[in-house]
Amino acid sequence: MSNNTIQQGEILRKINSPEDVKKLRHDQLPQLSKEVRQYIIDVVSHRPGHLGASLGTVELTVALHYVFNTPYDRVIWDVGHQAYAHKILTGRKDIFNTQRTYGGISGFPKMSESEYDAFGTGHSSTSISAALGMSVASQLKGEKDRQHIAVIGDGALTGGMAFEALNQAGAENGNLLVILNDNGIAIDKSVGALNRYFTNITASRSYNRFKNKIWNLLGGNSHSRKSSPVHFIQVFLGALKSFLFRGTSNLFESFNFRYFGPVDGHDIKELTKILNRLKHIQGPKVLHIVTKKGKGLDVAEKDPILYHAPGLFDSKTGQLAPVENASPYLRFQDVFGHTLLELATKNQSIVGITPAMPSGCSMNIMMDKMPERTFDVGIAEQHAVTFAAGLASQGLKPFCNIYSSFMQRAYDQVIHDVALQKLPVVLCLDRAGIVGEDGPTHHGVFDLAYFRPIPDLIISAPMHEHDLRNLMFTAEETDMPFVIRYPRGKGSIQDWKNKMKKLPVGKARCLKTGENIAILSFGHAGIEAAKACEQLDFTGKNAAHYNFIFLKPLDEEMLHEICKNFSRIITVEDGVIKGGFGSAVAEFILENKYNIHIQALGVPDHFVEQGSISQLTHDCGFDAEAIIRMINKE
Amino acid sequence: MSNNTIQQGEILRKINSPEDVKKLRHDQLPQLSKEVRQYIIDVVSHRPGHLGASLGTVELTVALHYVFNTPYDRVIWDVGHQAYAHKILTGRKDIFNTQRTYGGISGFPKMSESEYDAFGTGHSSTSISAALGMSVASQLKGEKDRQHIAVIGDGALTGGMAFEALNQAGAENGNLLVILNDNGIAIDKSVGALNRYFTNITASRSYNRFKNKIWNLLGGNSHSRKSSPVHFIQVFLGALKSFLFRGTSNLFESFNFRYFGPVDGHDIKELTKILNRLKHIQGPKVLHIVTKKGKGLDVAEKDPILYHAPGLFDSKTGQLAPVENASPYLRFQDVFGHTLLELATKNQSIVGITPAMPSGCSMNIMMDKMPERTFDVGIAEQHAVTFAAGLASQGLKPFCNIYSSFMQRAYDQVIHDVALQKLPVVLCLDRAGIVGEDGPTHHGVFDLAYFRPIPDLIISAPMHEHDLRNLMFTAEETDMPFVIRYPRGKGSIQDWKNKMKKLPVGKARCLKTGENIAILSFGHAGIEAAKACEQLDFTGKNAAHYNFIFLKPLDEEMLHEICKNFSRIITVEDGVIKGGFGSAVAEFILENKYNIHIQALGVPDHFVEQGSISQLTHDCGFDAEAIIRMINKE
Repeated sequence: MSNNTIQQGEILRKINSPEDVKKLRHDQLPQLSKEVRQYIIDVVSHRPGHLGASLGTVELTVALHYVFNTPYDRVIWDVGHQAYAHKILTGRKDIFNTQRTYGGISGFPKMSESEYDAFGTGHSSTSISAALGMSVASQLKGEKDRQHIAVIGDGALTGGMAFEALNQAGAENGNLLVILNDNGIAIDKSVGALNRYFTNITASRSYNRFKNKIWNLLGGNSHSRKSSPVHFIQVFLGALKSFLFRGTSNLFESFNFRYFGPVDGHDIKELTKILNRLKHIQGPKVLHIVTKKGKGLDVAEKDPILYHAPGLFDSKTGQLAPVENASPYLRFQDVFGHTLLELATKNQSIVGITPAMPSGCSMNIMMDKMPERTFDVGIAEQHAVTFAAGLASQGLKPFCNIYSSFMQRAYDQVIHDVALQKLPVVLCLDRAGIVGEDGPTHHGVFDLAYFRPIPDLIISAPMHEHDLRNLMFTAEETDMPFVIRYPRGKGSIQDWKNKMKKLPVGKARCLKTGENIAILSFGHAGIEAAKACEQLDFTGKNAAHYNFIFLKPLDEEMLHEICKNFSRIITVEDGVIKGGFGSAVAEFILENKYNIHIQALGVPDHFVEQGSISQLTHDCGFDAEAIIRMINKE
Repeated sequence: MSNNTIQQGEILRKINSPEDVKKLRHDQLPQLSKEVRQYIIDVVSHRPGHLGASLGTVELTVALHYVFNTPYDRVIWDVGHQAYAHKILTGRKDIFNTQRTYGGISGFPKMSESEYDAFGTGHSSTSISAALGMSVASQLKGEKDRQHIAVIGDGALTGGMAFEALNQAGAENGNLLVILNDNGIAIDKSVGALNRYFTNITASRSYNRFKNKIWNLLGGNSHSRKSSPVHFIQVFLGALKSFLFRGTSNLFESFNFRYFGPVDGHDIKELTKILNRLKHIQGPKVLHIVTKKGKGLDVAEKDPILYHAPGLFDSKTGQLAPVENASPYLRFQDVFGHTLLELATKNQSIVGITPAMPSGCSMNIMMDKMPERTFDVGIAEQHAVTFAAGLASQGLKPFCNIYSSFMQRAYDQVIHDVALQKLPVVLCLDRAGIVGEDGPTHHGVFDLAYFRPIPDLIISAPMHEHDLRNLMFTAEETDMPFVIRYPRGKGSIQDWKNKMKKLPVGKARCLKTGENIAILSFGHAGIEAAKACEQLDFTGKNAAHYNFIFLKPLDEEMLHEICKNFSRIITVEDGVIKGGFGSAVAEFILENKYNIHIQALGVPDHFVEQGSISQLTHDCGFDAEAIIRMINKE
């Protein structure tokens, strides 16, 4: 279905940029919001994407572009999967249908895509840092009127770097507005003390009404009435507060932010009113708005976790489309989830840790049965790893699951707290390799290269479901830091539930003997290599195929054997070539003075854009076709 | 001077473990504290180490070991450079003199060194995560009496992962005590909104006295008097507070921690009293103590930044020892500092960013002259990089200086916010390579390997001061993300202040022609390679020497030339061999089918312990001697 067949509402039809939004009468904004919301539902129903978060921010988006002077004023959308309305209102309405597809517009804000995308996002909790940088730049350049706005969810606020940014921001005096979009949901339900705290704040609106009344009595933003009786009341209340409660009444005020809210984030009248007021207040300030994830689609409001990114659905009812040609295979994440529960049932020392991804990595399977041994620690990768190290130091066996691209956040903790202390944490990296539609921020292609230099770390990757289960079992039995990285998507073995066995750590295997040329694949890339071998057999060529499931320790015995028997080697991996598996084999060959021709296939040295996994694997040149082409080249 | 010649006080002489501390009468504790403090001063005056922080925590350490049942109860010292008294009281008194030396005890807590070191530290802000992990483990194991204590400075609390940990901790119910050691100083002065906030808290002690009185009136920890009149007052105050201030009165209470303090951290009577009380309170709690960095040594109290790690000094007066055999060379960090100011004077768009290290990286030279363009953002590496990216997105030219080993904390931000968006941030990595006495947590040996796989990143390292200046100038002129990594310690050129010139990005240079064998050095390792060449010349051997100052892009033209003219290559780098410069050259050789024997020298695949830089370089095998040995090997 093309965009052309999706009807746009009366008002939306005329909107091609925020300039057009500004021309509307105030009373037309609710209708525009309604039409934008319907348009998102209509498009995303047949072109899957992040639905829930964007439905929750429609009114906020309309209000921001109505009140502020974008793109001169800057809006940064934290995480960025809530920016669909923003894309629709900023000139990308008619190509919105291409979102997340190969060659189409990104599902996240992207500087190179539009001047309205002030800063690219994708990973959580970066917005305040970036907005603060911009506001400081404006101060240095003397742009006093310029506004800088970070929109951040309550989930994203659990990420430590958001606090690092708050701490500096509270000591600067630029035009910085942080909008806390509080919906109680990240991808899974928000967790931790902060979540409770925001709920408490929101529950006690009476105070805020009271405070707002005082504020208005005092003349709003005018600070001139210092001698009025209301000023006296203010001073008195302030003093009482200082005496009793040490000068701050809430978290943000501890950071020297002025706090406003909570405000109903779907009340566009209220939103535009307060945003207009905030424009004129200098310094760091927080506006706390309360929104509903999935707003406007009943079923999504009721099950925001399912409708975070629901796939195809009926735009009227919200009913999820039946999965056509249902694959007989389980997703790797589900194999992980079921296996973790299976292991944990037998071994009381196993605990599970996930930073805000229980359903994303299927650790919810264990969490449902063993809530006391499963920990969702919030969007907090750094903490997740060191927390796991703390657990491991007491003899427990933590399985800590973090998407590969998010593990970049915990790199220091893996070195400093896990590997250096040889603590037996099992680091499970879901979404390793090319992840598809989420694009360059989310591809998990660096992990092999960044983990390989770390001493005392076992690094492994399964080729298929049985490997994954065996590796998890092996990790359980091994008293060392242990990395298991596996891909997004489905496996290749219908009867996935094998009886697990302990694998010899650091051993590779020969999957197929052959002549002249040896294909050495790492982990899941073995699937493409095996396909290539099959097709080569068909043409009469006979390549050997070795699959390595351990990058470290590397199977040097097997490598010696290979190097003695072959004059040509092709390595295949679903990660960056520089520093990865191919690089490890190259180091080995030169160190041992073998005279062998080696070619490395994998992710080349540029950022990989979005598209289907198979398309991108093809483009990167490590699918079966590329392997065959390379073999036939000479 | 050996430990034997340093006198120990009457009481300290009898203390060989915390058991002995517990045997003391309460009124002996001030004297023990005095003796421990004097012992630290005496030892550290001739065996340089971190002085100031440890002087500030003497009473706290004595109190903790007096009150708690260590090592069963666990104390985790955040950062760890304040743990000297802890080491002295836990069986390492007589080897304390070996701290930070080759083969001696570590300057930081280290699990492998003592059962009293519950968790290794070195990098900031990890303690709450680790302690929370331990407390959760205790809960799962049913160890109800076990206590878990994280001692964290106000500086370390600006690190985001501390907040990530607070957020989870506030939702758990284990025995977790966070002691906020508030001295207003990290290595440099603490910065940001939190610092102001703690000052405000501390200033308004009246409230706390009031609160404590209420607490005592209510029967302290007994929660039984629910019907008493004071209970009514409490409920009333609580209700008033809830109504007016939304249920929380301070930052920690926002995270669902119970807050106690502030308490004078040098009043041991008060400390033991409150710690004894806190032992019996379940759940997450914070004790805020106020201490003086450098306590007990006048000059150190007055200049805590200078006396953070003062080198040799007179133990009576504190006067710093005159530097013997003063080197004519400047430290690399000072060349950086002066050059940054020089560049910033001419170019208004240059801004400086440092996470809590203005004096550590000499950015204070610019800060003194241009405070409005220099930003100390707190111990906040993640934020520092994204903040810099925000500045760069507005056309400014940020120089962001982060020690190499701390840059591990900002790995994701370099990928996701800087490189992916091609923002021209200059990332300056001080303390790259082997750093010496700080040991395995601080060696900056991974940077080349972890940065090399990132697309669109220029990676460089100077061999000497002129290179550093030229690279900084080149980075200024280059509109791309640019890494410059340089070592701890002094340079090798007396006349360091050359006229800067723009270098061709990605070009290496031939420093010496030769025959048969080519030495390819990277960055500062070129110094050792040049020494080796000189000595080889003397013996009649003639090795060529090429110095690469760019790891990326790699000078392939030069490499082709080398590969055509030499049959043997030795690479030398001051970083890990796996994935680093040698690995890049190996990839090149195999990719281009050269038949060349290559040997890579650098940091081998194990964690490097502490010692002098020259000793460790020797042990790792990449000093001049090792290069010569390798050349003579065949």
